[in-house]
Order: sequence, then structure tokens, then C-alpha cells
Amino acid sequence: MTMSQPADLWPDVKPDAARRLMFAAVESFAKVGFHATTTRDIATAAGMSPAALYVHFPSKTALLFEISRTGHERVLTLVQDVIDQGDPPVDRMRLLVERFVEWHAKRHIVARVVQYELGALPEHEYTVVAGLRRRIEQAVQSLITDGVRAGVFSVPDEKVAARAVLSLGIDVARWYSERARKTPRALGREYATLVLRMLGSSAE
Amino acid sequence: MTMSQPADLWPDVKPDAARRLMFAAVESFAKVGFHATTTRDIATAAGMSPAALYVHFPSKTALLFEISRTGHERVLTLVQDVIDQGDPPVDRMRLLVERFVEWHAKRHIVARVVQYELGALPEHEYTVVAGLRRRIEQAVQSLITDGVRAGVFSVPDEKVAARAVLSLGIDVARWYSERARKTPRALGREYATLVLRMLGSSAE
Repeated sequence: MTMSQPADLWPDVKPDAARRLMFAAVESFAKVGFHATTTRDIATAAGMSPAALYVHFPSKTALLFEISRTGHERVLTLVQDVIDQGDPPVDRMRLLVERFVEWHAKRHIVARVVQYELGALPEHEYTVVAGLRRRIEQAVQSLITDGVRAGVFSVPDEKVAARAVLSLGIDVARWYSERARKTPRALGREYATLVLRMLGSSAE
Repeated sequence: MTMSQPADLWPDVKPDAARRLMFAAVESFAKVGFHATTTRDIATAAGMSPAALYVHFPSKTALLFEISRTGHERVLTLVQDVIDQGDPPVDRMRLLVERFVEWHAKRHIVARVVQYELGALPEHEYTVVAGLRRRIEQAVQSLITDGVRAGVFSVPDEKVAARAVLSLGIDVARWYSERARKTPRALGREYATLVLRMLGSSAE
């Protein structure tokens, strides 16, 4: 399985042992799912004992939550950084889609766990992640609203349009692999063009 | 979990016991994943003994394959039926997206298993399903090509555009629930408008 290294994926997580455990957990969750993975599988894959795992994470659920929470926070930051720029809505939307698609293609294994294993989180943890998801959706929707007000976007339903923009990017995690014809960056650029059209922009 | 009944989902599967097993399998695969589900779980949920399950399916894998194969065949038929109509490309694409999105919204639990549990299939079974997927993608791409030749669609890359059209529909299975604001049919209509724009059609 080819993917980025633990230090690139989670630069803020310390120490390195915690990152290695998250990496091993992502690989196993992506391969057989959260419920079929044991803490022993994760510890072994990270070259540790189960006891050493518990020093860093109290449970398998805590690991999933950390992977899911940090993933959603990274995406929210990525989206928010673009939204907060003063550029015109069309330029911001183009940049947002480029970066969002690139993130999901480049880290498709992590993104798959982040996007598809939500249902395994207990109620409190689920609520935290659902809150981050809502903020991501609201940010994209507010950018669409900005564009509609500026007269450069025109959509039948801003909420549906925001969902569609995010859907295109998220689904990349499902099908993308290193064998894909397009690099993550090239794919991001093409999808940005498709999204601008979808939003009724005449600019491409 | 609210969803259609076994007889609606698999009208061609006989006898009813086999359908009930597929239904129970879908519910468990969608909830905890293929690897964490046992044949005993499935048999019990269907009100049968594990031995009775083996009368209909030799293994858990055979059940997943049957769910995945029939799901992909239904989608291929749906796509092919629309493509084979003599209508202009814009009308066919609108109808295709309406039906494809409606299918994924209405049967979102089955569709989730069909779309996301592919990785659990053994090589031979995977090859069969991958072949069906390729035919679905090729059918959508050929419709886009028809539209480009007729001068009513214009896209930078027909393969990327086909993937994007399918992505929008498939991702509906991930997020759709009975609590969604839009009915499957209404969502299909809105997505059809967005897709026609994406393909550079001036018709909406």
C-alpha cells in the first residue's frame, strides 16, 4: 500500500510512536474495516506490544477518533484558509476544489477511513466529528452564497450545490489509486473547471 | 434501519429465504463491515440456522458477491436502458442522472455495500464486478461522446467527465438518509441539472 509517511500525515501528533500507531490503524481500518481490526493487529503492525499501544491510546475507538478528528480538522483548515482570502468567489472556489480534490487523492487511504468509518464512532465522538463536517459544509455553502450575491454563480439550491461540490471531492478517495491516469493536482484542476460550470459560472 | 423489503430489492432472486439472507447480510455489512460479520450473524438475523444459510449460499463471500453482482447488474441495466433510447444526448443524460441518483438514494444501504465493500471480494469475483463497473463507465462515457459529437456537450476530458457524473451519484449512497430534505426523485432532478451544466450543455 503506497501512501505518505506518518510524519507527513500527522506533523502535529507527537511522539512518533503515536503516529506510527495511527498509520497502522489507518492501514487496517481501510483494509478490513474498524470492527474487524483488533488493537493487537494495530500494535503488531506498528512494531509494539498491545500494552505499549495503550500508553498512547486508551482504545481502538480513541485511535479512530484521533484519525477522524485530525482528518476533518485538516480539511476544515484547508477550506477555511481559502474562504478567508479576499479573492473573488470564482478564484476562491477554483482554489478550494483544487486543494480539496488533491487532498483526497493524495491521501486516499487516510481519507477513506476519515470519510467512511464515521459510523463506528460512539455518540460523543460522532457529535464532535459531525460538528466539523457541518462547518466544512457551511463554509462551502457560504462561498457559493457570496458568488450568487456577486452575480457570478447561479444555482437552484445552495445547500444541494455545496453538497455536490463536496461529493465530487470526497468520492475521489473511493476510486483514486496510484494507478490513476491523472496526478492529484491535475485532477484537482479538472474538477475545479467542472465545479465552476456546475455553479453556473461563465469563467473557466 | 428503514429500507425497501427483500422482494422489492431482488425480485429475480428465488426463493424468499435467499432474499431474506441477502437482506440480513446487507444490514450487517453496512453496519459493521464484511469482515466483522459472521455467517451466524446473518443466519440469525434472517431467522435461520447457519446450516440453513449454507443451503442457499456456500459462504459469506458468496453472499457479498451476489449482492454486489446483482446491484451492479441493476445499475448497468438502468444505464443501458437510457442509453439505448433514441432521444437526443441531453435528454438521455438528464434521465440517466435522475435514475442513477434516485437508485442510490432510495437503496442507500444496499448501494453502500455495493459501492464500498468491493475490496472484500476474492480475485475472480472482483474481476466479474470490475467488468460490470467498466461497462457502466464506458456507457456513460459513450453518451458524453455522443453529445460532444452532436455539439451539445463540451468537456476537457470525456473519461474524467464520466467519472465525475458517476461520482456525484455514487456518493449519494454515503450521505443520503431518510432524514434528507429532498426525496430521491427531487434530488435526481437537481443533480441532472448540475450534471448538464458540468458537461457544458446550454440546456437545463
